[in-house]
Amino acid sequence: MLLKQEHFQEKQEHLYDVIIVGGGAGGLSAAVYLARYNLKVLVIEKGRGRSFWMQELWNYIPAVISGKELIEGGKKMALGYGADWLNGFVEDVTDTGEEFQVRVKYRFKNSDYPLFRSKYLIAASGVMDTLPQLPNQQNVFEYAGYNLHVCLICDGYDMNDKRAALLASSEGQINTAFVLNWFTPYISVITQGAFHVSDEMREKLADHGYPLIEKPIARFLGENHIMSGIEFDDGSVLPVDTGLIAMGSVRHSAYLESLNLDKHGHDLLTDETCRTSHPRLFALGDLKKGLNQVSIAVADGTMAATTIWREVRRAAAPRKWEANLPSALMGATAAQE
Amino acid sequence: MLLKQEHFQEKQEHLYDVIIVGGGAGGLSAAVYLARYNLKVLVIEKGRGRSFWMQELWNYIPAVISGKELIEGGKKMALGYGADWLNGFVEDVTDTGEEFQVRVKYRFKNSDYPLFRSKYLIAASGVMDTLPQLPNQQNVFEYAGYNLHVCLICDGYDMNDKRAALLASSEGQINTAFVLNWFTPYISVITQGAFHVSDEMREKLADHGYPLIEKPIARFLGENHIMSGIEFDDGSVLPVDTGLIAMGSVRHSAYLESLNLDKHGHDLLTDETCRTSHPRLFALGDLKKGLNQVSIAVADGTMAATTIWREVRRAAAPRKWEANLPSALMGATAAQE
Repeated sequence: MLLKQEHFQEKQEHLYDVIIVGGGAGGLSAAVYLARYNLKVLVIEKGRGRSFWMQELWNYIPAVISGKELIEGGKKMALGYGADWLNGFVEDVTDTGEEFQVRVKYRFKNSDYPLFRSKYLIAASGVMDTLPQLPNQQNVFEYAGYNLHVCLICDGYDMNDKRAALLASSEGQINTAFVLNWFTPYISVITQGAFHVSDEMREKLADHGYPLIEKPIARFLGENHIMSGIEFDDGSVLPVDTGLIAMGSVRHSAYLESLNLDKHGHDLLTDETCRTSHPRLFALGDLKKGLNQVSIAVADGTMAATTIWREVRRAAAPRKWEANLPSALMGATAAQE
Repeated sequence: MLLKQEHFQEKQEHLYDVIIVGGGAGGLSAAVYLARYNLKVLVIEKGRGRSFWMQELWNYIPAVISGKELIEGGKKMALGYGADWLNGFVEDVTDTGEEFQVRVKYRFKNSDYPLFRSKYLIAASGVMDTLPQLPNQQNVFEYAGYNLHVCLICDGYDMNDKRAALLASSEGQINTAFVLNWFTPYISVITQGAFHVSDEMREKLADHGYPLIEKPIARFLGENHIMSGIEFDDGSVLPVDTGLIAMGSVRHSAYLESLNLDKHGHDLLTDETCRTSHPRLFALGDLKKGLNQVSIAVADGTMAATTIWREVRRAAAPRKWEANLPSALMGATAAQE
């Protein structure tokens, strides 16, 4: 059920089996599996995550759909199987050793701060791509996710042999050009002058014929979400057919900081079941090491949910068919309970 | 494109980057990714695999669909991105060290045996669940995949608190009862007398109140694909609301035998990228160790395809923007080519 303020008191007294932070691809897949394993699960979703912005998801069978269709469909399934859902922002998580206590900010204004409890926690809150910051940010949203892409794996195919702008915010990110060139050699690298580019990199770019543009961007040009050029602050225009933003991403994981989980760089380290270094905490999708792809997050949700179910199930008393038990045994069973 | 006999000569001369054996969830996901990485890929599908029989796939977001919808949609995507597709049965695979040679039986009658070649091979041919063999096998197909299930993870939820028949073909499989009882305690175990049941197992079943039925099944009763009872050869009838077939499965992997891949029991051993012990051979989904779930196979396809792309890409010459190169360098580049 969709939790509203009137449910908070009852639900705060309740111990969930699992609280899932994030209702994107990974969190929804976990919720669907957990609910179908008859476990009590709560998904907490802050809204407008990475999948929300995906205009078209090209590589998740059986059909090209939008990120919104993916998350709305998955949410409907999870609710249908009995999961709880809360629109809110997870502020922090405390582990008492027995349970997690998850403090949620509910509503932007006149906020409420309910505390929910669970045995297990699934971190599925993902990342958000860093976008260029322009004087008019709406101008960026106009094209980002359309033909101004953020994912080379997903969208390289749609850049085949097109004139592409590569937007980088560090020298390391410029190296994306030497992967993007699998799809197109017509690459202009744009740094906006935001960082120093080494002579070695300048030579490498020149050797590949990729112009390096270090002027600030004034605005993206185009119409109907199709970017056709980039105007710089000196008034010059670079005509392009497509673009790739390689400016890194921000992980939505501040609420995990106090738990000191093992990491590999910024990524959470997990085993093959998506378990982190904390035995009751699992991490899915973009938060963990590996490919940031919808299909991977969905499988991660399957693995984590199934692993948690196995543990909860093994810790529970087996259900017996009472009517078929010898009465003496039934008495013994009843006495044990 | 869909390959027909008239394409064989041309396509046999062609070296594919990847041949995928099996057009189920894993193979299709790999095909979609590989085609979008601009790689030349051929999917070979024998038809009527495990997903073909799935009436309803309950746990793959964003919607409940049938296995047929999954594979037809995925096939349409793969073909749309430029993958080749062949309806045929892979008889055997030879590795020359440089390439795989894949011999295919095309058409059941008046068969042709074309040989296709690739750098990489993806084994995505899956498993087929073993079904009970009855005098009238059509009677089994009437209910299998409806409320006579084969997958506890997928369908346990739909067996909640129902009277369930568990069909086993070995003592080990009877243990499924002690997992199924998470969902329902009303379990009757049916062996059909096909194997010896130990005293220890008989006691354990009695202790749980689960009847053990060792008579051969005559037929399943019901209508409109909903099984409502099981009739035995002595004429007695067990009323049930649902059933679970736990009789193992057969791996579609005979074509891999000569390659001596490392295994864990019957499952192929793979690393985290789905690479087997053969460096150019990947295995997906049900053929490898792990959960037999659509979501897992789809992610496996993503991982294997992306790993192969990375290798092919790194071995290729970078594409330069010729028009921007200094003419001397262009001459040098041209001379190298």
